[in-house]
Amino acid sequence: MKNKRFLLSEEDIPRQWYNIASDLPTPMQPPIGPDGKPITPDMLAPVFPMNLIEQEMSRERWIAIPEEIIDMLYMWRPAPLVRADRLEKYLKTPARIYYKDESVSPAGSHKPNTAVAQAWYNKQFGIKRLTTETGAGQWGCALAFACSLLGLECKVFMVRISFDQKPFRKTMMQVWGANCTASPSNETNAGRAILKKMPDTPGSLGIAISEAVEAAVTDKTGKTRYALGSVLNHVLLHQTIIGLEAKKQLKMAGEKRPDVVIGCAGGGSNFAGLAFPFVNDKINGEKIEIIPIESSTCPKMTKGPFTYDFGDTAQMTPLLPMYTLGHSFIPPPIHAGGLRYHGMAPLVSQCIVEGLITPRAYDQLKCYESAVTWARTEGTIPAPETSHAIACVIDEAKKAREEGKEKVILFSYSGHGLLDLAGYEKYLGGKLEECSLPDSELCESLKSIKDLPKAKTQKTGKW
Amino acid sequence: MKNKRFLLSEEDIPRQWYNIASDLPTPMQPPIGPDGKPITPDMLAPVFPMNLIEQEMSRERWIAIPEEIIDMLYMWRPAPLVRADRLEKYLKTPARIYYKDESVSPAGSHKPNTAVAQAWYNKQFGIKRLTTETGAGQWGCALAFACSLLGLECKVFMVRISFDQKPFRKTMMQVWGANCTASPSNETNAGRAILKKMPDTPGSLGIAISEAVEAAVTDKTGKTRYALGSVLNHVLLHQTIIGLEAKKQLKMAGEKRPDVVIGCAGGGSNFAGLAFPFVNDKINGEKIEIIPIESSTCPKMTKGPFTYDFGDTAQMTPLLPMYTLGHSFIPPPIHAGGLRYHGMAPLVSQCIVEGLITPRAYDQLKCYESAVTWARTEGTIPAPETSHAIACVIDEAKKAREEGKEKVILFSYSGHGLLDLAGYEKYLGGKLEECSLPDSELCESLKSIKDLPKAKTQKTGKW
Repeated sequence: MKNKRFLLSEEDIPRQWYNIASDLPTPMQPPIGPDGKPITPDMLAPVFPMNLIEQEMSRERWIAIPEEIIDMLYMWRPAPLVRADRLEKYLKTPARIYYKDESVSPAGSHKPNTAVAQAWYNKQFGIKRLTTETGAGQWGCALAFACSLLGLECKVFMVRISFDQKPFRKTMMQVWGANCTASPSNETNAGRAILKKMPDTPGSLGIAISEAVEAAVTDKTGKTRYALGSVLNHVLLHQTIIGLEAKKQLKMAGEKRPDVVIGCAGGGSNFAGLAFPFVNDKINGEKIEIIPIESSTCPKMTKGPFTYDFGDTAQMTPLLPMYTLGHSFIPPPIHAGGLRYHGMAPLVSQCIVEGLITPRAYDQLKCYESAVTWARTEGTIPAPETSHAIACVIDEAKKAREEGKEKVILFSYSGHGLLDLAGYEKYLGGKLEECSLPDSELCESLKSIKDLPKAKTQKTGKW
Repeated sequence: MKNKRFLLSEEDIPRQWYNIASDLPTPMQPPIGPDGKPITPDMLAPVFPMNLIEQEMSRERWIAIPEEIIDMLYMWRPAPLVRADRLEKYLKTPARIYYKDESVSPAGSHKPNTAVAQAWYNKQFGIKRLTTETGAGQWGCALAFACSLLGLECKVFMVRISFDQKPFRKTMMQVWGANCTASPSNETNAGRAILKKMPDTPGSLGIAISEAVEAAVTDKTGKTRYALGSVLNHVLLHQTIIGLEAKKQLKMAGEKRPDVVIGCAGGGSNFAGLAFPFVNDKINGEKIEIIPIESSTCPKMTKGPFTYDFGDTAQMTPLLPMYTLGHSFIPPPIHAGGLRYHGMAPLVSQCIVEGLITPRAYDQLKCYESAVTWARTEGTIPAPETSHAIACVIDEAKKAREEGKEKVILFSYSGHGLLDLAGYEKYLGGKLEECSLPDSELCESLKSIKDLPKAKTQKTGKW
């Protein structure tokens, strides 16, 4: 008998999150205001509860996961590590491919890992209502689910193009009691301003974030806060449970370490969740290739500069040091809505600067082709975001075949595509066109950051 | 720490299916032709491969599961047994509620348990192509998935109303390489005849079965067979892996036995899969209440007679001894398409005759209400079929509260509802009307069976 799935028992769930900020070779640069001065905790207080702000700024290596959060995580965790042996056989590769299956959560992706944590910390702080943005809808669903567990109200601004492409995401959120609006909307100043300039815009995560932040800070009860599904330190922190579990499971599978670690990256939380515990190994001397995958239509990591930029279009957030295409960038309407974000998480960005990880960009059609290969070998239908990781996994497995190397490839199966079938329908019907990003558009959006403070591109040069 | 999920390792997967035909107190009555004579294996040969026909007629108690089938089952099995402790808390019930989570399969329901087995036996027999019917699409997806694993062609006739209600089911089947057509279609004589009489019919499983059987037997290559997703003995047999796993897992949870076992039943395979190993315990003296749930709009078990009837509308199948509303019955267009079948599996029907199990019928609106309660407590969104079981679970849990009894309730979470969100959208928007079944319609359809041979209502009177 060969082992297909590697399951941890509930006793084996990690009890602490891993904070990579404590281990990075160069200290992180702080978020700053437009005046160049570091943001203080007080300045974030209207947006986030203080317990999460503290976590955002923490330098502790290990942060204990409260028991009540673990109790919610038990609804689907520990998540399986699975050997993709059928794909290996199909590719005739000597590589051993493992995936961490994050699609098993009630909302269908890795997003609930931080949603239940954020909702819990907000509730502890006395908050009654959360606002948020969502791209493809995975994060909106995750927060709706988490809020329903804890009895919080939930308001979601969903990027217009995804709202139209994936109509049943809204229904899912409603099943969990949340309210979901297409963004840009008429409900906020930020939304109205964008609609006036660009009535037909497909929207973007940057715009939806502006709306959600505005909806939180303008609520006069003081009981509303904003929750972000990626990018920030505390969000990535909560996701490290993925990689911490995967490490234990790789040992169960008899593997010493992965040779290649792959994850798709929109804001960076899925990738970081799996990768950061292995980045730590790399800092400590292990030889691992670690690859975040982006869409070639939103190529901040492979084509953007590393600099300070706003997290949102309306410039409501602090400036963050990150790879970015400029906060005014509106990506082409690819189906992988979760990858349509102009910037990359500061922690992930710093790992790129250091050379600890090496990003790649993939085209939409190749990703759909890979997704169908996956469905017909491993059986499940991946989210369009996840298909970007699969495309790279297939490339790496073929490379191992050509080199005749028994590599261990590990990747994050970040979500299922059962709410994203419209894209598959177009692809299978030969009606899905390649989205491309004209250089001119990129140049235009980069103008929006040219006068902002520059981030230091510190690196040790070790990797 | 309390345990939420009870997971078996791969070594613990059952290696044999349980055949209840060997243990029923009165022997099963055979399928017969319209002349009243028993059907011989040869007569079924154009429809099914001989290895499955032998299994259909077997009286062996335990039938070994071939290693290659187990290998496919490992893609999602053993499936979790989960404690619904959040629902218990919400209901303030002393009952302990457990569910067997069959939604974890790639196709999203219990159906792949038999789909991979049937596809494998057909392939062994040299078959290249399978035809089938599907209601809500769960079975069509399951067979499409199984065929993609084994390299078989797959043709699915999908009941028109579900085809329209759940458009992305077709896309799922296409991702796995199958071809899916709305039924009644213009591709078969049976379909054309129905369309001529009733051009606007919502269709039914009975009609779709006629089309699929015709498409199989009229294929001149001789390499096409038909696969049925429920009703027949071998289909129910393959599903018993559910109950066999659940028994082991209840022991892990420290429970001696369930007091109540519940499953929704369209053709009967989901219910039987969980229940039959416990029906065996009941035959051997255990006290267990075992409840198959049907829709009140398709009430064969609670309002139909037990008699011989055709499995399909066009009278192409043998006559089977079952609870039935008549093969011409076309159920109202409820969203639980998998429950829209006029008859009940002969093995399940015989258990009703014996008094071993006690069916109940539930209305659509109450089921949606229960499904939303489920989603907001246990987190996941159930299929409309599954919501019928949940409605009964909630009733039983409330009853236990009123009686102050610590009952153990076990049910089958047969599938997720992520492809069925249109029904939820209507329900949450207050636009879902109760479907009802006028008595006059029932009387009319029962006329179609009045001249058919009668089945004997043998029982021992022990239960």
